[in-house]
Amino acid sequence: MLRIRADEVFSTIKDILLSRGLSPDKAEILSQIVYGNTLDGVYTHGINRFPRIVSNIETGVLDVNAELEKVSSCGVIETYDGHFGIGPVNAYRAVQRAVEIAHDKGTGIVALAHNNHWLRGSTYGLYAADNGCIAIAWSNTKPNMMPWGSSELRIGNNPLVISVPSDDGIHFVFDAAMSQFSYGKLEEYRLRGEMLPVDGGFDDEWHLTKDPCAIERNSSVIPFGFWKGTSLSIALDLVAVVLSNGFSVMDVGREGEERGLSQVFLVIDPSKISDGESIRKNTRKVLDSITSCSTRDGENLRYAGERLAAARKDNLANGIPVHESVWNTVLGLAGRVF
Amino acid sequence: MLRIRADEVFSTIKDILLSRGLSPDKAEILSQIVYGNTLDGVYTHGINRFPRIVSNIETGVLDVNAELEKVSSCGVIETYDGHFGIGPVNAYRAVQRAVEIAHDKGTGIVALAHNNHWLRGSTYGLYAADNGCIAIAWSNTKPNMMPWGSSELRIGNNPLVISVPSDDGIHFVFDAAMSQFSYGKLEEYRLRGEMLPVDGGFDDEWHLTKDPCAIERNSSVIPFGFWKGTSLSIALDLVAVVLSNGFSVMDVGREGEERGLSQVFLVIDPSKISDGESIRKNTRKVLDSITSCSTRDGENLRYAGERLAAARKDNLANGIPVHESVWNTVLGLAGRVF
Repeated sequence: MLRIRADEVFSTIKDILLSRGLSPDKAEILSQIVYGNTLDGVYTHGINRFPRIVSNIETGVLDVNAELEKVSSCGVIETYDGHFGIGPVNAYRAVQRAVEIAHDKGTGIVALAHNNHWLRGSTYGLYAADNGCIAIAWSNTKPNMMPWGSSELRIGNNPLVISVPSDDGIHFVFDAAMSQFSYGKLEEYRLRGEMLPVDGGFDDEWHLTKDPCAIERNSSVIPFGFWKGTSLSIALDLVAVVLSNGFSVMDVGREGEERGLSQVFLVIDPSKISDGESIRKNTRKVLDSITSCSTRDGENLRYAGERLAAARKDNLANGIPVHESVWNTVLGLAGRVF
Repeated sequence: MLRIRADEVFSTIKDILLSRGLSPDKAEILSQIVYGNTLDGVYTHGINRFPRIVSNIETGVLDVNAELEKVSSCGVIETYDGHFGIGPVNAYRAVQRAVEIAHDKGTGIVALAHNNHWLRGSTYGLYAADNGCIAIAWSNTKPNMMPWGSSELRIGNNPLVISVPSDDGIHFVFDAAMSQFSYGKLEEYRLRGEMLPVDGGFDDEWHLTKDPCAIERNSSVIPFGFWKGTSLSIALDLVAVVLSNGFSVMDVGREGEERGLSQVFLVIDPSKISDGESIRKNTRKVLDSITSCSTRDGENLRYAGERLAAARKDNLANGIPVHESVWNTVLGLAGRVF
């Protein structure tokens, strides 16, 4: 594992994107997002995924020239068409706009149709939190899960993000797909030769199993909470589709590639209805009730998002850990050799 | 099991509430809610729970004279103090107000502090759906679950509701607590002498178990999806507390009784941003993708809320099934004998 200086990772990514025809502002936004996810230690949605993003740009799955188009609005809600543009760029502009409306009117909602994969939901939750706002945001996906009780791939793992700003900058950010495990996580366990800690899908005899290989072989990841995650996934798809007038999970499935996703960014600025001291106190009392809770191993619990700051600090100080093969691929895309 | 005529159930409930000092409009709202839950077949949150509601009125846990008080507002968001009034009445008025704002401005959000148990979240989701609106609503609770990895009761099973109207009146309504099973559900399995279909909590050796008795004994219901439900529960508490400036789950725990809950009602009127035909088409395509999906038993899947209409029809036609002991208690409260 190499450790590459953070600024070198950023500039390399940005150079590659500029060379692939992205406008300077789009290249800047997308680089910041890929770089930020990498800094946060979420490599699967950062540097490790970057070669695939570039490939999607080259093959036209992502239209680098597409711009968000406003379709309708009423009060604090606005709907946009993403025209199959660069998913994270469109999503970033959508949450920016939702935050802008919230700063003005207390609440802002942007529903976005025909976008592409937003990469990592936390990006948008953290953006809102950095701007003092609460966010609830989600995306649908291609049909990659079976509803509980069925063996047809009919629902998405539709990631859901809920973020709340903390005054110390270590924001709460819940960011979860509707599957109990991602396929990326299954791969990690398989490569380590380990079983999952809890059941994650079905084996060949259709029994619940902790065996990552069996689940991968059968494409049988289960919704988290079984029937509960099933219905939550359907709920998120339904609301996103009705608000955005965009593709449903099953529509996305008919596209071949996973493209044209429907997304919702719901942002509230709590400072419009409560004073700063109350907000601070209320946030702290909930977060402290978690961090003061001991685990059965005698450690302290952490809240969602708490680990990101430590990863960021370490990566900034010591360089970003990158697999040599990944870095060689990235350098190749930049027309350089390692 | 008796079958009591629906109108008799309603009038008996209402008479009892009027005799306990509720104003006519509060008695009407609470009767409609208890009756509606019963009609929908959700007896645990209807007639079976009614004696406990009356007891809470008699002991003053519910203040029948308390009224919602508006605390602050900004644009489409309003915050209220429920002053420990009748939970379902306050919640009903809160969602009514959120729908009213949404009908006017596209979106309406009401955050409610110091309310009591709202009984059944679907009531408020269905109210919004009957009025053509999408709702996302949730409540915190007392600390009745252990965060994944800990053995301290620090999080609530905070029920979450997401509803979307369907033009045939059979609305989609996701209504789920953050626990994999409720204690009511564990009791049902125990009484039937059955194991749970999936792990629901811990046994005496702290292993995951399907044994309802062991889970009840150890108060060890688990969050649905383990760590995912843990963080979602915290997220809902955090947002509700920050928006309402009310009690957190741990604050509620210090009250002795489960009282003073924080609740959020977020309502969107899709007709403000989309035409009726698109809304109908978008809703149908998602719901149809579920109902056309076959289960492994060869049946068709149902979406959340779909079964309610059938229960309602049966109960209206054939009378409401009530345990004789429950009905005797209710008649006793009405000063009548069976």
